[in-house]
Amino acid sequence: MKKEILELFDNTYPNRDYTIEIVNPEFTSVCPKTGLPDFGTVTIRYVPDKTCIELKSLKYYFLEFRNAGIFYENITNKILDDLVELLQPRSLSVITEWKARGGITETVSVHYSSPL
Amino acid sequence: MKKEILELFDNTYPNRDYTIEIVNPEFTSVCPKTGLPDFGTVTIRYVPDKTCIELKSLKYYFLEFRNAGIFYENITNKILDDLVELLQPRSLSVITEWKARGGITETVSVHYSSPL
Amino acid sequence: MKKEILELFDNTYPNRDYTIEIVNPEFTSVCPKTGLPDFGTVTIRYVPDKTCIELKSLKYYFLEFRNAGIFYENITNKILDDLVELLQPRSLSVITEWKARGGITETVSVHYSSPL
Amino acid sequence: MKKEILELFDNTYPNRDYTIEIVNPEFTSVCPKTGLPDFGTVTIRYVPDKTCIELKSLKYYFLEFRNAGIFYENITNKILDDLVELLQPRSLSVITEWKARGGITETVSVHYSSPL
Amino acid sequence: MKKEILELFDNTYPNRDYTIEIVNPEFTSVCPKTGLPDFGTVTIRYVPDKTCIELKSLKYYFLEFRNAGIFYENITNKILDDLVELLQPRSLSVITEWKARGGITETVSVHYSSPL
Amino acid sequence: MKKEILELFDNTYPNRDYTIEIVNPEFTSVCPKTGLPDFGTVTIRYVPDKTCIELKSLKYYFLEFRNAGIFYENITNKILDDLVELLQPRSLSVITEWKARGGITETVSVHYSSPL
Amino acid sequence: MKKEILELFDNTYPNRDYTIEIVNPEFTSVCPKTGLPDFGTVTIRYVPDKTCIELKSLKYYFLEFRNAGIFYENITNKILDDLVELLQPRSLSVITEWKARGGITETVSVHYSSPL
Amino acid sequence: MKKEILELFDNTYPNRDYTIEIVNPEFTSVCPKTGLPDFGTVTIRYVPDKTCIELKSLKYYFLEFRNAGIFYENITNKILDDLVELLQPRSLSVITEWKARGGITETVSVHYSSPL
Amino acid sequence: MKKEILELFDNTYPNRDYTIEIVNPEFTSVCPKTGLPDFGTVTIRYVPDKTCIELKSLKYYFLEFRNAGIFYENITNKILDDLVELLQPRSLSVITEWKARGGITETVSVHYSSPL
Amino acid sequence: MKKEILELFDNTYPNRDYTIEIVNPEFTSVCPKTGLPDFGTVTIRYVPDKTCIELKSLKYYFLEFRNAGIFYENITNKILDDLVELLQPRSLSVITEWKARGGITETVSVHYSSPL
Repeated sequence: MKKEILELFDNTYPNRDYTIEIVNPEFTSVCPKTGLPDFGTVTIRYVPDKTCIELKSLKYYFLEFRNAGIFYENITNKILDDLVELLQPRSLSVITEWKARGGITETVSVHYSSPL
Repeated sequence: MKKEILELFDNTYPNRDYTIEIVNPEFTSVCPKTGLPDFGTVTIRYVPDKTCIELKSLKYYFLEFRNAGIFYENITNKILDDLVELLQPRSLSVITEWKARGGITETVSVHYSSPL
Repeated sequence: MKKEILELFDNTYPNRDYTIEIVNPEFTSVCPKTGLPDFGTVTIRYVPDKTCIELKSLKYYFLEFRNAGIFYENITNKILDDLVELLQPRSLSVITEWKARGGITETVSVHYSSPL
Repeated sequence: MKKEILELFDNTYPNRDYTIEIVNPEFTSVCPKTGLPDFGTVTIRYVPDKTCIELKSLKYYFLEFRNAGIFYENITNKILDDLVELLQPRSLSVITEWKARGGITETVSVHYSSPL
Repeated sequence: MKKEILELFDNTYPNRDYTIEIVNPEFTSVCPKTGLPDFGTVTIRYVPDKTCIELKSLKYYFLEFRNAGIFYENITNKILDDLVELLQPRSLSVITEWKARGGITETVSVHYSSPL
Repeated sequence: MKKEILELFDNTYPNRDYTIEIVNPEFTSVCPKTGLPDFGTVTIRYVPDKTCIELKSLKYYFLEFRNAGIFYENITNKILDDLVELLQPRSLSVITEWKARGGITETVSVHYSSPL
Repeated sequence: MKKEILELFDNTYPNRDYTIEIVNPEFTSVCPKTGLPDFGTVTIRYVPDKTCIELKSLKYYFLEFRNAGIFYENITNKILDDLVELLQPRSLSVITEWKARGGITETVSVHYSSPL
Repeated sequence: MKKEILELFDNTYPNRDYTIEIVNPEFTSVCPKTGLPDFGTVTIRYVPDKTCIELKSLKYYFLEFRNAGIFYENITNKILDDLVELLQPRSLSVITEWKARGGITETVSVHYSSPL
Repeated sequence: MKKEILELFDNTYPNRDYTIEIVNPEFTSVCPKTGLPDFGTVTIRYVPDKTCIELKSLKYYFLEFRNAGIFYENITNKILDDLVELLQPRSLSVITEWKARGGITETVSVHYSSPL
Repeated sequence: MKKEILELFDNTYPNRDYTIEIVNPEFTSVCPKTGLPDFGTVTIRYVPDKTCIELKSLKYYFLEFRNAGIFYENITNKILDDLVELLQPRSLSVITEWKARGGITETVSVHYSSPL
């Protein structure tokens, strides 16, 4: 998961708060216990400060998880950490919704707000 | 309903609040009055503290109800009690939604918040 | 509408607030003006105190309305009155949603909270 | 079930085959075994010959079943018999779809074609 | 219902069979018995021969029914007659689906095929 | 738009706040610019004080708009004014949702609260 | 799987072909390999000859599978065999649709027609 | 993007706050990086002060973007700026929801409130 | 509409019939009468012979229509002509479904089969 | 794509035709041109002869495609070839439905019937 892949571009409207929501319903990674693939939808919602995330580079960042063995909870928190570190956003949420395994689905959601 | 079946794993991100929602649409138990099976969807939503619930063990825990005679309201409250005792979460909700009987459906929901 | 039909059972978890929602999409009564049947969905949502309502007896209570001529608004308020008197709940809502007549639908909702 | 309630009107276009489908999602009758109400959707589809069925009288005909104890299969076949006798249609189908009882739904369908 | 309102344009591809389907979910007329408005969806499906129907003029043709008192069955057959006379199509169907009155919906469908 | 058409009936439960929502998905009026019909859904939601609106008279009141040329925004506000004047409700909202014109839809919503 | 549980009743309309479809979305059995429960929807569609299946007894027949270890394909064929032997129907189909396991769903369908 | 295209009309009810929501699901512009078209739904929600936006002119304003190369975030903010400058509304929101590119969708939303 | 933009690739399985369906829900062209844009979904379904259509080049081919003024019926037939000439398929259908104008939608469908 | 991974089990009911449909909505492979992942749903529908496909081994067979670069059309035909060779079924279909790329979706379907 090289977060160096992520590219930013300047926020043209830094004087106002506005919200960008990005949804990737084609996220896949690998279960570290079984080695079998997991499938989920990743939603990122943030209020940009000085920079915005470039969509195509975000797509490549998500691809880094394709063959990585990592738990739902850790994926969600790691995406938050990587994006907060790079974007320095005013606020940012990550929500991951996972397809059923053994008939059971899981959703993990985490939120960051910049200190005032 | 042996709650000993439940396994925990360490929360890797204990310094932040985040939410885990688990949905099992394949829950079944037995009506203590008629002996006939009930079918429902169980949703668990919690903010972990030091530990998280392991999904597969949760599945086996749910299986313990398969042939047990127990009312909707008591199932819901018992799942809350078992999970709160084990997980010691920051907060936890249990929602059970039951398939129609006699044309009537029931939903039971209960919430726990850890004392400050 | 004999509310004596309604049966209660003891709330096993009176020390905590939790919510029970019951939905009956097969409610029918008779329009007192036209004598024609009305069809609706009745939703009851309450926080029990010492007692809970027994589902099967509730079904028979609803059946009492089948051939009774009574307006939407009065049905909704009467169900609230009957259930509050019997259950003495911490809070209780009744929502009735009626199928279209002359292309127009109506929904009536009323809420009760026990005095502190 | 007095089928005398049904009124007919002349088919203005008897020289061509065309199809009339009538759907009543608010049908209710009583289970002859339990005395409890059944709820269903009745669909009638026919190619008229000399006469068509008047909708309002059909509504009153359906109302005759409201407090009658009769099985799904017999309701369906009786409606077919009554309508075929009156309408003398080129063809006619009756489909009844019943709400779940004990978690199980039933649909009954029967078709009539006039002899050449 | 002045069918003179309808305009045609030349079919550019008369050497092949192809199908044009037009759906108007905003059709309204008046019930000749009650004087109350009826609402429906009109679908026209045809294989053009030498001419096609111009959409805007069809819209004005439909408007002619707005305040006219006419039965479902007759509207459907009249639209077929008007369009067949003008378009001389290879085949043409008219389907009208009507919003519920007294909880009951009706659909009328009629088909025309040009003689070989 | 003769609001004299509207009839009221006494509120049987004036000692409690409850909400009545009425939805008419079959509203139509005429665009004052093009003369073409508009189609929309009108929702009225109110807390009655001494009186309630009679549904059938409301249907006839809506019919008054059928051939009237009036803008979306003015219809919405006029319905609010008429109903508030008559009903003297504790609160009342009107929401009108209009079918697409040129691919664009519009929704207008306005709320009234009685002064304390 | 004691098929003796099944009860029949006389077909009142044996002189005509008509179709009865029964759907049970609350079927559950046990996977013989893993011992874990399977969940599915069972659909039975048949043209009765001299007898019809009684719904409540069918419900109890389905319950016999609740703790039995048996493959999807065999359940489907066994239900067909049992019902054909008892009902001697003019035709009968069984369709079983199974909830996802490992992200993969399966549907099995089999049809019987009585020899002429 | 000539905002001069936009036409206003007088708000007939300036003494009360009410909300107008306009949705255009047929918005298209061009990606400045790839030159390929983007497709989205634009929602505008505002409380008018002295003037309202005329719908047809808004449609032409949206058409100005058809062949313009401009990013999602900038379109959203520019529409807000143009409409706020012209309408001087009490409040106004713009939400743009974009069709998937590379399997990923984006939604941008921005809100303006007039200073008190 | 330069059909030279279209690229083909060899069909690896020419010895068997199989079907390829391509759906583009983001098609847009211009109405030749009003100059306003039309929006539609184009579906192409074909059985390849020696060659298949390359998806990206098809996308660019569709883009050629973006600013072209052409009627629904002619677009549909022209796409058929272009693709049949290039692909020489065993069979090919084109279906275009257009968003509502004046509340009315249109669908055009045409089919080609290679001579035996 | 090692088809050796696939396991079979004996068909217990070889004397009758019945249909097994398997759906995997979590299929993923890699586009050989761009190196980017493709996502699709694979449906297999077959009438078994002497053997059936074991579901878990089929899951592992699908996993072989996860990092393989192969076109939609070839995946579909290869799955057919592999399964027909192994299962020797009475008939077998493969349908693959692919998520949008550049706003365009594709579905490929192929059918095999055993020679009589």
